[in-house]
Amino acid sequence: MKTIGVGIIGFGTVGCGVARLLLEDGDRLAAATGCRPVLKYVCDIDLKRPRPVAVPKELLTDQADRVLADPDVAVVVETVGGATFAVDLMKKALAAGKDVVTANKAALAQRGPELFDAARRAGRSISFEASVAAGIPIIRAIRDGLVANRLTALTGILNGTCNYILTQMSSTGASYAGALAEAQARGYAEADPTLDVSGEDTRHKLAILAGLAFGAEIALDDVYVEGIAGIDPSDIAYGAQLGYVLKLLAIARYVDGAMSLRVHPTFVPAGSPMATVSGVDNAVLVTGHAVGNTFYVGPGAGMMPTASSIVADIIDAGIGRAQLTAQHMAWLAGRRATLPILPLREIRSRYYLQFDVRDQSGVLAAIAGVLGRHKISVASVLQHEPMQPECVPLVITTHEAREGDVAAALEEIQRLPVLAGRMVRIRMLAPNQGARA
Amino acid sequence: MKTIGVGIIGFGTVGCGVARLLLEDGDRLAAATGCRPVLKYVCDIDLKRPRPVAVPKELLTDQADRVLADPDVAVVVETVGGATFAVDLMKKALAAGKDVVTANKAALAQRGPELFDAARRAGRSISFEASVAAGIPIIRAIRDGLVANRLTALTGILNGTCNYILTQMSSTGASYAGALAEAQARGYAEADPTLDVSGEDTRHKLAILAGLAFGAEIALDDVYVEGIAGIDPSDIAYGAQLGYVLKLLAIARYVDGAMSLRVHPTFVPAGSPMATVSGVDNAVLVTGHAVGNTFYVGPGAGMMPTASSIVADIIDAGIGRAQLTAQHMAWLAGRRATLPILPLREIRSRYYLQFDVRDQSGVLAAIAGVLGRHKISVASVLQHEPMQPECVPLVITTHEAREGDVAAALEEIQRLPVLAGRMVRIRMLAPNQGARA
Repeated sequence: MKTIGVGIIGFGTVGCGVARLLLEDGDRLAAATGCRPVLKYVCDIDLKRPRPVAVPKELLTDQADRVLADPDVAVVVETVGGATFAVDLMKKALAAGKDVVTANKAALAQRGPELFDAARRAGRSISFEASVAAGIPIIRAIRDGLVANRLTALTGILNGTCNYILTQMSSTGASYAGALAEAQARGYAEADPTLDVSGEDTRHKLAILAGLAFGAEIALDDVYVEGIAGIDPSDIAYGAQLGYVLKLLAIARYVDGAMSLRVHPTFVPAGSPMATVSGVDNAVLVTGHAVGNTFYVGPGAGMMPTASSIVADIIDAGIGRAQLTAQHMAWLAGRRATLPILPLREIRSRYYLQFDVRDQSGVLAAIAGVLGRHKISVASVLQHEPMQPECVPLVITTHEAREGDVAAALEEIQRLPVLAGRMVRIRMLAPNQGARA
Repeated sequence: MKTIGVGIIGFGTVGCGVARLLLEDGDRLAAATGCRPVLKYVCDIDLKRPRPVAVPKELLTDQADRVLADPDVAVVVETVGGATFAVDLMKKALAAGKDVVTANKAALAQRGPELFDAARRAGRSISFEASVAAGIPIIRAIRDGLVANRLTALTGILNGTCNYILTQMSSTGASYAGALAEAQARGYAEADPTLDVSGEDTRHKLAILAGLAFGAEIALDDVYVEGIAGIDPSDIAYGAQLGYVLKLLAIARYVDGAMSLRVHPTFVPAGSPMATVSGVDNAVLVTGHAVGNTFYVGPGAGMMPTASSIVADIIDAGIGRAQLTAQHMAWLAGRRATLPILPLREIRSRYYLQFDVRDQSGVLAAIAGVLGRHKISVASVLQHEPMQPECVPLVITTHEAREGDVAAALEEIQRLPVLAGRMVRIRMLAPNQGARA
């Protein structure tokens, strides 16, 4: 039977998961795939820290060069992270004739084409199923299973931390700060949660998925991003009254030859599959011209779900499929399109608008008047009887409107004397925009 | 660029979809995959019938042997259907050195191993993404994306006709006959719907998925099956009052070295992702030891969703991945396990029980007494005030119990004088049995 030597560089949580699967499940993997993955090295600069997996001492090293120089290593698993040292390491591994498997979304989102080109020059492959939505085989679904389709839309929940926080706020009425603290206590959020809650992590993942789906070169700056830190529990509660659930969505649309790429809090209809994705789960809705909508849900993070995808990529390299994929598929093989980006002001969406207004006559007429002059049509209005007359929450949802018109209307409403406090704008997903699988 | 000649045998709905994709999207497919699929033949015994796609006359033939004899045909798409002529055809195509792509679930469920062995002897591949859940790339998810996992459970909605009928009954209160007539009027059900509503079609698909997931040899008779024809709208309504939605589920479990394989109407919790799968959509929840739960939803039938998966398989054969898959993966490469089947009486499930009883004292005590003696614990009771005292519907749900115990208890209750009419038993999915992704 064919064997394939594996060197793991980066002995953190994910590296531990990969080592555990290879050590504990080697026989089963060999029987299932006709190819035995053999762990040759686990490399890290810090080998002293306690780990949740027992790796035989002779496999441990702090010398990455030793891993790269060993001809018995056919696949290098890069679980270091970051877009500098890790990228150099992957390029060295490729140049040394190794196939590379990685979960590194930052490296792929920022320097993916450079890495793919290095793989092509070396005649090797770089596989990255674990970089987006951890355990969900979404890269394979888009790249292989749906390859016959012209893909027109991706809509995803790609960050488990944010989804956990929003789920907690929805189900318990917790504040953002309270839900974040809970997420930190459970290990679902970092001590510094900025990368997750700012939407930046989701942005990385959307850049990868959209690049693959549209076969396009995408710069991170092409992706508009809004995080969840400003979300008030009252908006989640008003949304619930209207039949909507708040999610941080990653959205990619291919419209008339241009791409709309964005990450922002979004209300999704409560009955839709996307609304049922709770806690740290991730989900992606993929729309293609032949297949229609397909929907994928699963764990978006975690040691073993991430390792599940990395080991699948190791097997793919071991039996030779990864190399064929790298040679053929447009985005990986260097045939990438440059597509224009649809400016944010040109997108069309439904909107949830919330205004703190004074309880006096003519308020609704004034606000509705501004909206009407900007060609924004009101879909529903929610105003409860006032508790404090000086500050009444008014909620308006709109039919589909142009983002630029909404921005102009809000700027005008901001100057109205009836406005007594905050003004909130949250985009909404209409059922026909892909909320249903 | 590499080109790959394709011969379609069977010019029905699915064959039309494949022809359309290849004829209309050839350039795009070539650019995306580095491999140009070229339609060489469309073969059918009846070429006169009008079709929804215009195939150039010179590609049409009624001689399957001509397709098999042409060295320019590298891939044969079998869209004839059935487990006799089609199987012979696929074996001839493999022997002639062609790779085969098929959507034929009957052939694979009944004679899969025979076909895989023929492919192995010929050094070719047989791919069948379209045979289960049409457009959802569920075969690739199980075979490639989740290959690192010991898979322990599959739970699926695999028949769009049944799901449409049950969705209609739930949302409109229609009778089974009414919903079936509606499905037939919309083209979602055949004039003779037996294959679908009996659960037989779902059984075929479960046999394929479970064989692949567990790497096992599965006979159709190993799969217990109950269809939906006996479902009464009142049970759907009582289930809804208790927070459950009725689905025809395909269930495969790997428990202590044995397989439990079954198809039956099942109540799933209303808030679960599975409950949101409506109309003709299909869905599969896959559980693995490393990844946990992943969930897949999409179109389970239709010309273009099915063609989407077939063309993905053509590309896989064209770039050489399908052959590597066929050589390596246990179920395809002839390394199939023989696993015992857990007898139905030994499964554990929750149960929905409905009894038409007389409105007299002691009824509940009598029934609950029988259940208790058989170690069946009551979870909830639903009994509305009687409209007709001679026949009151009593609904009882149970905690997890052994099927054999429930059967024995029901046999005993059947003989009680308090029973005035029908007695219904429907299995329920508990959240911990995989209702959540």
